Order: sequence, then structure tokens, then C-alpha cells
Amino acid sequence: MRTVDWEQGVVRLIDQRKLPWEFHVAEYRDHRALAEAITDMVVRGAPAIGATAAYGMALAGLNSQADTLDSIRADLQAAARLLRETRPTAVNLAREIELQLKVAADPQWTTADQVRAALIREAHATADGDVAINRRMGEHGANLVSDGDTILHHCNTGSLATVDYGTALGVIRCAHEQGKQVHVLVDETRPRLQGARLTAWELDNLGIPFDLIVDSAAGHLIRSGQVNLVLVGADRIAANGDVANKIGTYQLGVIARENGVPMYSVAPTSTVDLALPSGDDIPIEERPREEVTCVFGHRVAPDGISARNPAFDVTPHRYLTGIVTENGVVYPPFEVSLRRAVMEGSSL
Amino acid sequence: MRTVDWEQGVVRLIDQRKLPWEFHVAEYRDHRALAEAITDMVVRGAPAIGATAAYGMALAGLNSQADTLDSIRADLQAAARLLRETRPTAVNLAREIELQLKVAADPQWTTADQVRAALIREAHATADGDVAINRRMGEHGANLVSDGDTILHHCNTGSLATVDYGTALGVIRCAHEQGKQVHVLVDETRPRLQGARLTAWELDNLGIPFDLIVDSAAGHLIRSGQVNLVLVGADRIAANGDVANKIGTYQLGVIARENGVPMYSVAPTSTVDLALPSGDDIPIEERPREEVTCVFGHRVAPDGISARNPAFDVTPHRYLTGIVTENGVVYPPFEVSLRRAVMEGSSL
Repeated sequence: MRTVDWEQGVVRLIDQRKLPWEFHVAEYRDHRALAEAITDMVVRGAPAIGATAAYGMALAGLNSQADTLDSIRADLQAAARLLRETRPTAVNLAREIELQLKVAADPQWTTADQVRAALIREAHATADGDVAINRRMGEHGANLVSDGDTILHHCNTGSLATVDYGTALGVIRCAHEQGKQVHVLVDETRPRLQGARLTAWELDNLGIPFDLIVDSAAGHLIRSGQVNLVLVGADRIAANGDVANKIGTYQLGVIARENGVPMYSVAPTSTVDLALPSGDDIPIEERPREEVTCVFGHRVAPDGISARNPAFDVTPHRYLTGIVTENGVVYPPFEVSLRRAVMEGSSL
Repeated sequence: MRTVDWEQGVVRLIDQRKLPWEFHVAEYRDHRALAEAITDMVVRGAPAIGATAAYGMALAGLNSQADTLDSIRADLQAAARLLRETRPTAVNLAREIELQLKVAADPQWTTADQVRAALIREAHATADGDVAINRRMGEHGANLVSDGDTILHHCNTGSLATVDYGTALGVIRCAHEQGKQVHVLVDETRPRLQGARLTAWELDNLGIPFDLIVDSAAGHLIRSGQVNLVLVGADRIAANGDVANKIGTYQLGVIARENGVPMYSVAPTSTVDLALPSGDDIPIEERPREEVTCVFGHRVAPDGISARNPAFDVTPHRYLTGIVTENGVVYPPFEVSLRRAVMEGSSL
């Protein structure tokens, strides 16, 4: 099944908090419960939460009691506000909500039911589009992978971070499908261990060889010449190529550049926020301190201490070799190349 | 009590695997059991395992049935081989064992009992010397700390890593005792969480304010101007100033230098290995993969996967602003300044 799925008015999500211990599919009939699921990280990953938000708007339409265009649009505005507040950093979420509001506002509709149907169609189009886009990114990115490469990968960017197939992990998967021998160094990605729990689980299922490492071991392995390529995803990319991504990405970028190892961010153009000139303006989510003081319910620090838990960081574009999009791999100067990649997409 | 203590033929260690959940003192009457305790990390930290090895040799002497000088010296050689193999990276361990073998070989002894007594005296001198040295390092290092500083600290380098008082954490403690307002960012230090479990516990007890962070958050906090100083310990320092220390130190060094934040290693001159021209020759211990796939008994990755677990890395000297020793703070060129600091020590 897809990470984010829809079956007859029910949104179905693979519960990512329970992997790898348990494979559990959570079901949502209400957009408010779905919003909580996004905040609680039942689903995570910029493209996956984008698609979830699109389906959330469809659910809000279905559940609205409205029988006029004005009243269903008012209900959708309220749902949009709720869904928008769930996670602040990834741009895909806000973008899919805006898209759904535009769909609902289309002057061609004359009944609330037409709006309801259009929201579901749009959510399906988003989900299907995500899978198609990921496969195209995989092929563009696989050209950067040589037979025998060892690739360092951060967080989870696979099927579980998207509707299906993945972004950075999609590149690795595509290279593997092309018959290239690749080995992956999976960093565990504290605090929520998306690498250890999710990426390791996906690679294991795909039969792609890998070693799990702690986040602190990346530098040593890069410096000692054991890494050919670093691949990460993105939660939001500014117009100048600065990349907001899972906490720890910035330091990987610095270490990779220091050692002459190429690093690419792999992300659909829907992750690019041309309205932001640089990454300085991207909001960085601070998550609960318990994610740091506990490891999935198991306390690892003294009781009652203080902790800080920024969930993302910004990697300035100078640390990136390039950015892999569905419209090709773009290189500096990113102001020019990224804008072109985004525009190509909109003309397709 | 001291982290490493001796009471009437018994070595007493604070069991650091059980902190912060439980304060438990383990007792050892046999050097073989003590060797296992070092391998299993009941005790850790370069100075602490150095003192433990010194006491281990004293235990070996006590427990030896030998009644001639030749036979007790043979027993001590066997004990030395066993203790030497417990941990490969820190030089203090090997150094204290060699020192005890020299003590035993002293031609002034005429009976095995004289050797036994000398080994105990030497172990006490090592332990007392460690505390005195740490206080001197604390004072030298505290001069580098300004009122209001936020200090990023890696692993545990406090009382628990030494006989008492600490190295890098001793500097923070001394600055605090001088009345300077300091705030510490404690990185958790996966895989064994010495930061989250031990440093947080020590700072909490000392009343020094701190925030716990995941290792991956260090870069973001340094880049965003929230760190004034980075302090780390050392397990072995080569003649050129390259520092082997807990995994993750290297990447902190790269990020600190990239952002113009000073970073110092704090270590007694007994950690300097003048026989090694550079850090390239320092053996890096690989520890069991279960430390990565589990967090203190709680599995965090799929069953049966492969992991890599280098316990240390080498930070080339160019990333260090200076090295704090008991004989003062030394600066590049370290080939000259470190040798001088070591020689001053031997002439004291």
C-alpha cells in the first residue's frame, strides 16, 4: 500500500511511529484527527504530509454539512487553518492546502457536491503526481551514482516520506534497480530515529545493502574516504538554493564540502519556495523536549532537565553540489537554475 | 566518593552503565573481573580507566600467590597483557600499566610484598595526581571562559570520566565556581549517551544550567550564533596535536572552525603520546553493533541488520584553537608547544 492512501472516504496512513516494531495502518474519517496525526508524526516527510493535507481537505469537504458553495468554502477555510498549523517548516503542506482552496474557489462549480468531488480528484492527482515525480527524480539522480558507490543518507526520504518510491532514497533505489552496486550508510537521525527505524526498514525490504551508524560517525567515515556521495531530502528550498531539512543536514554539508565529497538534496520542485530569497526566513520547528530526553518511551537523561529540540536546520546553498528535481539536476547559481526548473514544471 | 576508589584491597567503581537511573557502586577484588568492567564500560573516560588500570595492577599483585620477585613480576606481566587489551584508543590505560610494571621492576625491592605495597602506593599517587591535575587544568581553562558564555560540550569529561573533578567539564565547573555565568549545551553523545546520562547528571548535581541536545543539533546552534566555545576531552593526543576523542568530536571541530567558534581539547599531558607523529596511527576501537541498533536494551532498528560503531575519531590539529593541559594552554604549532608542556610536567 501507499504511505498515504484513500479508500472510500477514509484516509489510511502507515503509522510511522510504530515501525519497525509493528506495521499498523491508521484510519482517519475526520480532518481534525488527521491534523493531529500530522503533528504527532504518524506521517512525516515533506511530500507525504503534503499529500496527507490534500486528502485532509478532501475529508473536510466530505464531512462538511454545508449545502451552499459559500458555506462549504467557509468550512474549508477553517480546515485549512487547522491543517496549516500542524507543521511549520515543510512548504509542501501549506502549498497543497492552498491548492485545494483554489480548487474549491473555482467559479465553474455550482454545487457543494461538485466542490467535494473536485477536492478528492485533486488529492488523488497530488498523490499520483508525487509517485510519478519521484520516479523521474530517481532517474535523474541515479546518473550521479557510480557502480560501487557508498552513499551516506540522512533521515528517511523513502516510500515512507512520500506517497511512494521516495526522493533521495528513490535515487538510491533507482540506481539499485539499474543494477549498480551501492552500499548505504544510514545515519540513525536522532531524536526520532527515522534512519534507524524507517530507512533501515525500507532498505532491508528492498534488499539494498547498508550499515546503520550514529549521526556522530558520519564525519569520521567521510574523512576516512569511505563515502562517495551524500544524499538528503528537503523540507523547503529557498530561491537561492538554501535547503531546510531534518536537523543534522547542515553539519553533513559542511563535512562533505570540507572533504570534497559531493552532496545533493533531492526534492520535487513543489518543495521550492521562490517567495523566500534565502533560507534565513524559513521557520524552524522546535519539537517537544521529551523527544530528546526519551527514546520512544525509554528515558535516557535525568528527570526534569531542560532540552532543546530544533527539528530542522538550514544548509546554505554553498555546501550543496546540486539539487535533484523531477525536471533534472540543477547546479549553482541556484537563483537561476532553480527558477528554471520550477517554471519547466509549471509548463508541463 | 571518587569515580575510581580503593578500600582495603577492593576497587570500587561507580557503575556508569546504570546512571542516571541508579547509583550503584560495583566492587572488584580480582583484576580479571576489573578488566571486564573496563571493556564493558562500567568505568570509562581516559583518565578514569588509567587510574582503574593502575589499581588493577595493584589487585593483581595482591592476588598473586607468588613469593619470589621473579614470580610476582611474571604474574604482573600476565595481568598487564590482560588489562592492556580492554580498550585500545586511550593512551592513559597503557601508560599506567607500563608505569606499574616499572614500579614492580625497581631493583630496590627484595621481596614480593615490597612490590605489592609499591603498586598500591603508585595507584594512589596516580589517583591523587589525577584530581590535582584536573584542578590545575580547570583553572587554566577557566581563563578562556567569559561571563555569560554558552559552551558546547561533547560526551562526558566530568568527575565520572576521571578520578574526580573532570577535564573539559572541570573547566566549566571551575568557571562556575569563579562566579561566571555559564550555560552548557550538552550533546547526548550516541551511541552510549554519555552526555545525556552522565554529563546531564553531573551538571544537574552541580547546579550549572544546561540544555540537552541531540548530536545533530550542534551544527545548527553553532551556525546560528548560540555557542561561544566548544570544549571536549581527549583519549590520545599525537605529537602534532591531532586528538583522538569520542566519535563526533571531528565534526564538531570542522563546524566550529567553519563558524569561527574556538574549540579546545582539555586533557592532562599523560594523554599526549609523543611517540605518535600524527593521529593517523591511533587505533580506533570498533564497539559492538548492538550499541547502535539498541538504546540500552530497547531495540531501535529492524532485527538482524548490519551496523558500524567506531567509538572514536581523530580531529586533525588544524581544527583546534588550543589544548588545555595542567601545565597551561598550548597553541599551534603543537609539535613545539605540546612537547614543552609534557616536559614541564616531567620536571615538576
